[in-house]
Amino acid sequence: VVSESPTPPNFTRAPGPAPEPEKGQGRREAPSLPRWWGWGSGESRYSRERVQKILDFLRFRLGGPREGAGGPPPELHDLSLPPSRLSRPEFQRLRDLLSLGTASMEGEERLLHSFGKSSMDLLRLRHAQISKLTDVVVHPASVEEVQAVLAFAEDHDLAVVPWGGGTSVVGGVDPEEGSHRAVLTLSLARLAEPLSLDATSRLARFQCGIYGPEIERYLQPRGFTLGHFPQSFEYSTLGGWLSTRSSGQESSRYGDISQMVRGAKLVTPRGLLVWDRSTSEAAGPDLSEVFVGSEGTLGIFVEATMRVHPRPPESRWDAALLPDWYAALEFARELSQSDETPPSVLRVSDTEETALTLEGRAPSETLGSRFRDRLAPHLLDLKKLDPEAMCLAIANFQGTASSVDEGVRRFRQALRSHGGLDLGRGPGEAWKNERFALPYLRDELLSEGYFVETLETASSWSDLGPLDQEVKTALRDAAHRGKFPAFVAAHLSHTETTGSGLYYTLVVPQLPGREEEQWEALKRAATEAIVHHGGTLSHHHGVGRLHRPWVDQARGQLTTRGWRSLKEFYDPKGILNPGKVHPASR
Amino acid sequence: VVSESPTPPNFTRAPGPAPEPEKGQGRREAPSLPRWWGWGSGESRYSRERVQKILDFLRFRLGGPREGAGGPPPELHDLSLPPSRLSRPEFQRLRDLLSLGTASMEGEERLLHSFGKSSMDLLRLRHAQISKLTDVVVHPASVEEVQAVLAFAEDHDLAVVPWGGGTSVVGGVDPEEGSHRAVLTLSLARLAEPLSLDATSRLARFQCGIYGPEIERYLQPRGFTLGHFPQSFEYSTLGGWLSTRSSGQESSRYGDISQMVRGAKLVTPRGLLVWDRSTSEAAGPDLSEVFVGSEGTLGIFVEATMRVHPRPPESRWDAALLPDWYAALEFARELSQSDETPPSVLRVSDTEETALTLEGRAPSETLGSRFRDRLAPHLLDLKKLDPEAMCLAIANFQGTASSVDEGVRRFRQALRSHGGLDLGRGPGEAWKNERFALPYLRDELLSEGYFVETLETASSWSDLGPLDQEVKTALRDAAHRGKFPAFVAAHLSHTETTGSGLYYTLVVPQLPGREEEQWEALKRAATEAIVHHGGTLSHHHGVGRLHRPWVDQARGQLTTRGWRSLKEFYDPKGILNPGKVHPASR
Repeated sequence: VVSESPTPPNFTRAPGPAPEPEKGQGRREAPSLPRWWGWGSGESRYSRERVQKILDFLRFRLGGPREGAGGPPPELHDLSLPPSRLSRPEFQRLRDLLSLGTASMEGEERLLHSFGKSSMDLLRLRHAQISKLTDVVVHPASVEEVQAVLAFAEDHDLAVVPWGGGTSVVGGVDPEEGSHRAVLTLSLARLAEPLSLDATSRLARFQCGIYGPEIERYLQPRGFTLGHFPQSFEYSTLGGWLSTRSSGQESSRYGDISQMVRGAKLVTPRGLLVWDRSTSEAAGPDLSEVFVGSEGTLGIFVEATMRVHPRPPESRWDAALLPDWYAALEFARELSQSDETPPSVLRVSDTEETALTLEGRAPSETLGSRFRDRLAPHLLDLKKLDPEAMCLAIANFQGTASSVDEGVRRFRQALRSHGGLDLGRGPGEAWKNERFALPYLRDELLSEGYFVETLETASSWSDLGPLDQEVKTALRDAAHRGKFPAFVAAHLSHTETTGSGLYYTLVVPQLPGREEEQWEALKRAATEAIVHHGGTLSHHHGVGRLHRPWVDQARGQLTTRGWRSLKEFYDPKGILNPGKVHPASR
Repeated sequence: VVSESPTPPNFTRAPGPAPEPEKGQGRREAPSLPRWWGWGSGESRYSRERVQKILDFLRFRLGGPREGAGGPPPELHDLSLPPSRLSRPEFQRLRDLLSLGTASMEGEERLLHSFGKSSMDLLRLRHAQISKLTDVVVHPASVEEVQAVLAFAEDHDLAVVPWGGGTSVVGGVDPEEGSHRAVLTLSLARLAEPLSLDATSRLARFQCGIYGPEIERYLQPRGFTLGHFPQSFEYSTLGGWLSTRSSGQESSRYGDISQMVRGAKLVTPRGLLVWDRSTSEAAGPDLSEVFVGSEGTLGIFVEATMRVHPRPPESRWDAALLPDWYAALEFARELSQSDETPPSVLRVSDTEETALTLEGRAPSETLGSRFRDRLAPHLLDLKKLDPEAMCLAIANFQGTASSVDEGVRRFRQALRSHGGLDLGRGPGEAWKNERFALPYLRDELLSEGYFVETLETASSWSDLGPLDQEVKTALRDAAHRGKFPAFVAAHLSHTETTGSGLYYTLVVPQLPGREEEQWEALKRAATEAIVHHGGTLSHHHGVGRLHRPWVDQARGQLTTRGWRSLKEFYDPKGILNPGKVHPASR
C-alpha cells in the first residue's frame, strides 16, 4: 500500500529546518482548496485503481450499490443558504472589535464553518440539506479579541461555537443556537502560532488554533515531538484535541492529549482561566481535566503548554497474522503489558478488517495478492492459518536501537506463542504511509453509493472480548431489521496496560432517501450496546451532539449534574456551544 | 544506616502468601499502641546512639537547645478534654445507624481522632493545648452506613471530618465545625478490605480505609504492586492518598496517586458517585481529578480501583556524590529524562542535607566517618570534591536485569559527566531501610528541644534552581528576623521528565513559649516565596487548613470559585470538612 498524490508530509522524518514563526502574524497555513463536501483538501489520495479494488470487495460482500444511490460531490451553487440572523449594524459592531476586521456573514464562509465531518454531515451536504447555518464567522487575532467576542455574544444573545479544524464527527461544531437568537462561530485560525519551547523542562507552548503538522514542523527540527497523531492530524487543531480529549495513533507510547497537557489558558465568559500543572501537585482539586473534554461548553482553549518528547532515534514496524480474533486480543494484551518496550502503535484487525485490508488493494501493491498468488498458501498452510479467521496485527516500536530490537524481539516471541505468522515491516509501513488518508476513501465510497461510518469505544482488557461481541451483534441485528446488508469490521488500537480502544468500520449500501434512518438505526444499536456493556461512550471523538442522548446513562446523573454546576458558573448565560456534551436541561 | 527495632516490614520482598481477606469483616489491622502524641506506633525506630549523633550535629550547627525547651512526651491524664457537644439521645440515634454500634463520644477516642501529625499538632499536644476536639467518632461498616451518617449529619447540623490514617501534616483532619453546631469524625477503619484483583486488566479494587501495608500484602503475593510508597505509607490510607493527591517515593516510576486511580466510589451528600476510567476516553469532562485532591470537602472515597503493576523482577540501588548543588540538579534532570530507564526513586540532597546525612550517623555505620577516616580524603581529593559543597544522590532502578543494568550504567555515565563520585549500593539501601522511619526522629528532636518542620513544592526543571534559592533565602531571612538560628536543608525527589519535587527540612531550637510564632514565621516565609515564584503550593501533602490562606493566590480565583460551584452542588449544606482547601467564603 502506498499513498497516492499528493503524498502526505512525512512528519516522523526531519522536514528540514522550520522557519522561525513570525510573531504577531498568527495566520496558520491554510490547507489548500478545502473539500467542503468531504475530507481535507486537494485531490483524493486514493487512485481510481485502488478504489476499484475496494469496490470489488464491497460488491462481493454487500452487493452493488442501489439504484439512485451515490453520485458526484455537490456544487456550491446548488445550495440554498439561509440568510444570517445578524443585522448589518450588529455585524459592524462585531467587526470593529477585531483589529484585522476578520468577520464574515458571507454565505460560503458560513457554510465552511457550519458542518463537521461526520458521515451524516457529508451526506447532508451531498443532498443539499442545509437546515442550519451559522450566522457569522469571526477570526479573533488575540486572546483579548476572543474575550471581546464572548462579551459581545453575551450582550447580543448569541450562541458561540468554537471552531478549530472543524473535523468533529460527533456534531461538535454544529451551529446550534440553543435558547439564543443566532449563532456566532469563533474560529481559532488566527491564534495558531507556536509560542515557545522550554527544552530543559520538555514543555512547549502553542496557541490552540495550530494544526497538527505545524506543531511537528516547529518541534521536530528542534529535536522534539508532541507524539499526537490522530487520523485527523493534518486538519485538526490543538484546541480541538484538548476540547474533545483526543487520543492519537501513537497513544500507547505518548498517552492521550489529557496526559500531554501541562498548562492552558482558556477564555470563559467569567474571565481568563490559567492553569499550570508542569509537575504533580497536591494543591486541591484539578479542574484541568474538566476543561479537557468540555468541547467548548465551558471555555475556549487559546493557549496550551504541552509535554514534549525527544524524537526517538529509531522506529521500526513489524506485522503478524494471528490465527483468530481471540488469539489476536491476547497477543495484543501481552504486548501492551510488556512494561519495558511497549509498542507506540499497535493495531489488531479482526477477521473482517483483515480481509478488507488484504483484499482491498491494487494488485501491484497488495499483500493480499501476494498471499493468494505466491507466498501465502504455502505459509498459511504451514502455520495452519485459516484465511476465514486470521487477523492482521501491526506494531511500531520507537526508542534507541537496542530497545527497538527488544520490542521487535518480544513482538515475534508473542506472535509465536499465539500461533502467528510474521509478515515483517511491510504492512506497518504501508499503514503508516496512508495513516491520514483513509477519510478520503470515505468520500469515494459515498460517491459510489456506499455509506461508511466509524465509531469507537474502549474498555478494560477483561471486558473487551464480550463488549466487542455485543457491539457487532447489535450492529448486524440493526442492519438485519433495516433489511440492508452490512459490512462490520473492527480493530483494536490505542492500547494501554489496563485496556484498549475498539474501533468499528461499517459499510452499508445507501438506501436512497433512507440514509438518515440507516445511520440512526446503526448508531443507536451500537451506542446502546456500548453503554449497556460498560464500554466508554467515546474513546477519542467526544460527545458532541450525537452522543448526548446517552451521556446521562454513560456517566451517571451525579456526574453530569456536576458538569452543569460548572457550566452555570463559567458560562452563566449558556452561550458556549449549546446542545453539546451536557444532557438536555432537566 | 540501618533501622532500629522494630524493623519495618520489607514490602518489596515477598511477605509470603497473604491470607484471603475475610469478606464482611472489614476491620483493618490496627497499628499497635498508637503514639497519639507523635508518629506511628510502638517504640521509636531510632536508637539512642543514633539520636545522639544527630544531636551532636545540630548542636554544632544551631547551638544547644534553649533552657526549658523540649521535654518528654505528654501523659494522657495531664490533658483536659472538653466535653462533647452532642447530646446522649442524639448519640444514641447516631449509634443506631451503625450495624456494629461503632460510635464513641469517649474522650480518648475523640482525642485520637482530632489531631493530624504536623509538627505544630505534636507540639500542641505536648503543651496540652487541646483547643478543639471532635465531638463524636463513628466507624461505619458499609457504604450505606456512610450515607446514613452523612444524612444524619445534615439533619443535625454537624460538620463531618473524614478520617483515614490521620497523618495529615497540613491540618486536613482538624475538627473544624465551620458554621455547624458540632463535629463528627467519620473513620474509614471498618471499610479497609482489598476487594478484588483483575490480573488480566491490571486493576485492583480496595475499600478506601485500607493502610498501605495491607495493600501490598494483598498484591505482592499475587505478583503485583501498587507502587505507592509515601513516607507515611505504614499509617496512611488509600482514601487519604486519593483525597490529598499523594505522591509516593517511587513516583518517578509509578506516577502519583491521580495517575494510578482508574475508578472510584464516593459518598457525597447528594448521593453515591461512581466513576470508571479504566482506559482513556472522550466522553466529556472528567470529574475524577476534582475529587482526587478535594480532601474530603466534596465527598468521601469509599472504594477505588487502582492500576497495578507486576512486581519488577530486579531492583538495584546506586549512589553518588556530586560536586555541588547545580551539578546535582543537572545530573538529576539528565537521569529523569532518560526515557528508557528512568529511576524509580531519585533523591538528590543539597549540601546541607548531605552533611546531615553523612555526619548524623553512628560511627560504626556511617558513610561520613568512612569518608573522614579512611576512604574519603583520598577519593574526594582525587575527584576535587569539596565537602562543603558536595551533594549526595541516591537512585533505584527496577525492571528486568538488563534494564536495571542499563539504568545503573546511565547513572554512572551521568555522574562521571558531572564530575561525581560513585558510592555504590550502600547509601540507597540504607535509605530504603529507614524510608518510613524518619518521622520517629522528629519526635526525638521535639523531646530534645528542637523543632523540626518539613515542607515541599515542585516546579519545572527550568524554574527549580531559582525557586530553591528563593525559598532558602526566605527561610533564612525569617529565622534571622526571629533571632533564632535555622538549619535549612533540601532534597529533590519525585522527579518527572518535566520537573521535580523539592522537599525542605528545617530544624530550629524551640524558643519556649514562642514555638508557634517561630513556626508561623517560617511557614509564611516559605509559602510566600513558593507561591510568588511559581512553585506549587504543595507537591504531595495537600492544602488542608494550613495552606488555605494562599490557595486563591496559588490557583487563581477563577479556579477556586469553580471548586466552590462544585462544593455547592455536591455538599449543599457544607457539612464536609469545613475550613479546608477552599478559600474562606467571599
